[in-house]
Amino acid sequence: MQRIANLLIIKDKQVLLLKKPRRDWYVAPGGKMEPGESIFKAAVREFTEETNATPIGTHLKGVYTMMIQEQGKTVDEWMLFTFAANHLTGDLFKETTEGILEWHPVEALATLPMAEGDRTNLQFAANQQGVQYGTFYYTPEFQLIEESIQSSIEEVNHPNE
Amino acid sequence: MQRIANLLIIKDKQVLLLKKPRRDWYVAPGGKMEPGESIFKAAVREFTEETNATPIGTHLKGVYTMMIQEQGKTVDEWMLFTFAANHLTGDLFKETTEGILEWHPVEALATLPMAEGDRTNLQFAANQQGVQYGTFYYTPEFQLIEESIQSSIEEVNHPNE
Repeated sequence: MQRIANLLIIKDKQVLLLKKPRRDWYVAPGGKMEPGESIFKAAVREFTEETNATPIGTHLKGVYTMMIQEQGKTVDEWMLFTFAANHLTGDLFKETTEGILEWHPVEALATLPMAEGDRTNLQFAANQQGVQYGTFYYTPEFQLIEESIQSSIEEVNHPNE
Repeated sequence: MQRIANLLIIKDKQVLLLKKPRRDWYVAPGGKMEPGESIFKAAVREFTEETNATPIGTHLKGVYTMMIQEQGKTVDEWMLFTFAANHLTGDLFKETTEGILEWHPVEALATLPMAEGDRTNLQFAANQQGVQYGTFYYTPEFQLIEESIQSSIEEVNHPNE
């Protein structure tokens, strides 16, 4: 089963996105996990490969089950792990073989062209506390059929209570 | 690829564990994700099936890549998603086809018989804030060969800052 990890930088009220050449859709930098990799290491490695920068304060924001369906049948199932970080170091690439790196205001996540499920999970990563979970059902052409979403916030334990 | 979700209840400084008959090893209640399920829904469903109770305040504590190795070769790879909750409702089973349900002090996680990787992740779930990530390398008999661990804590954003 394919496992993809991506990472959204949110810094000075802007997000760092990769504009992919095929459809001009925006994504967070990321890519395929390697065998034996942790999801955390995969997200940091893929981000660094695609941007030339190192994220700081990387933390998990979402875990998603992705179902690709054609004529009512599931033709593929994979997992997406979305991380966020609020800082980065290093000189960013401007353009890579994967696409063009661009900063956009957080609010632009509502309107920039992208897969509708990505809009749900990147807006959560940028604006909400905690971790989101869910299942996205897509056509093979990445039209969203349905989404089912849950989320949680960890209660902070105060040692003296 | 197999995906397992489990859930540790931590309540009144005690944890709810399932004693499995085969080796008398302790585990957190859980089981296999179904196709299309989110990891959150799988953890809650499996917990409820095995305990008859409903967890409250369920949140993710760990995501692990599990590598089973024999004579230096990987023979299986799967994913483990560990959740925690601090409350539950309903009448707990005492014994199920899966094993015996027992409450133990949190400190007992250090000494009760269990897979060594489970000891790492259940102690994290019970005692630490944030989310843990990592890879566990095991023999087919579940002797831990090696573990590689990372963790993160989300910075809380204060809207007025």
